[in-house]
Amino acid sequence: MKDFRKMVENRRSYYAIEKKSTTSDENIKEIIEHAVKHVPSPFNSQSARVVLLLGENHDKLWEITRETLRKIVPAESFSSTDEKIKGFKNGYGTIMFFEDEAVVEGLQEQFPLYKDAFPVWSLQSSGMLQYNVWISIEETGLGASLQHYNPLIDDEVKETWDLPKKWKLLAQMPFGKPLQEPGDKEFSPLDYRFKMFS
Amino acid sequence: MKDFRKMVENRRSYYAIEKKSTTSDENIKEIIEHAVKHVPSPFNSQSARVVLLLGENHDKLWEITRETLRKIVPAESFSSTDEKIKGFKNGYGTIMFFEDEAVVEGLQEQFPLYKDAFPVWSLQSSGMLQYNVWISIEETGLGASLQHYNPLIDDEVKETWDLPKKWKLLAQMPFGKPLQEPGDKEFSPLDYRFKMFS
Repeated sequence: MKDFRKMVENRRSYYAIEKKSTTSDENIKEIIEHAVKHVPSPFNSQSARVVLLLGENHDKLWEITRETLRKIVPAESFSSTDEKIKGFKNGYGTIMFFEDEAVVEGLQEQFPLYKDAFPVWSLQSSGMLQYNVWISIEETGLGASLQHYNPLIDDEVKETWDLPKKWKLLAQMPFGKPLQEPGDKEFSPLDYRFKMFS
Repeated sequence: MKDFRKMVENRRSYYAIEKKSTTSDENIKEIIEHAVKHVPSPFNSQSARVVLLLGENHDKLWEITRETLRKIVPAESFSSTDEKIKGFKNGYGTIMFFEDEAVVEGLQEQFPLYKDAFPVWSLQSSGMLQYNVWISIEETGLGASLQHYNPLIDDEVKETWDLPKKWKLLAQMPFGKPLQEPGDKEFSPLDYRFKMFS
């Protein structure tokens, strides 16, 4: 248990990353596959989908993001957006997290009583998966962060990698060898966040 | 890493549980507090709230759930609902997971550009927290499952334990000493769930 707590504490958002890895591509693949396989999902529906982008595919994602934002961010503030995106592109790879809406809709049809609940549960299940992968890849020495340029980039992402239309993009996790450790994190007091009645 | 993967594999839904614990109440409290403290949240907003119910408080939750459902489930199918709820009440305690909507609304006001995204991120963040707690308490030998009687029980739960109105109940995790191991889990093939472009 001590070790798991340490892993949980070590999981931080790394923004300064470089185009190097601290582990093999095969290991990254195994980490993701293991997490996808074992993450709980409502009615064991296994709605999670993941795409790992490496090399020029990783670069391409951040070019798509950059050009998409250039069209909508006011020119005078684009340079800071551009810097941020360059930082992610500097990384080694990106993990894209999706939920398959075809699966969620199937559950809604099969169990109409929980129609409103399934999309909500699907998001919580995806959060579990993202957390597992985040903790696990940082354990290899990589640094990662969780970005959300969805839904702006969804159409072009699905077209570029020929992904099913029903895959809903929820998060993008750029990662690479850390150039810098994150600063101290601020914590709210726990006394009003956790209550116990015994 | 091997150990974490094992923990992830060991996390299963336990329905047959008894009113005994495999660890101290203090350890359960520490597990939850550690998880709440370190779970990532959008803009470090720390919107997660958790309530641990033990003893008669645990029993009370499942009585509330039972009486709430009795009013809406057709009488002829209530006995199976009742059996299920009795099973949870047989457990040792329940962890209730909330998100503080006051925090989420505060973010929406402060960053209107992400107005629609904050509630979605809040759910994913709560999923991360639930997963951490689920994995951690089962590591102590306890068995748990994730139940969703919200929003039916929300009003009475908040009234009974005098919880803030803005705390949105997302999940209930009854736990106890396992009476039975869960059966084999079925896994979908990974080849259409995970793609790699390198």
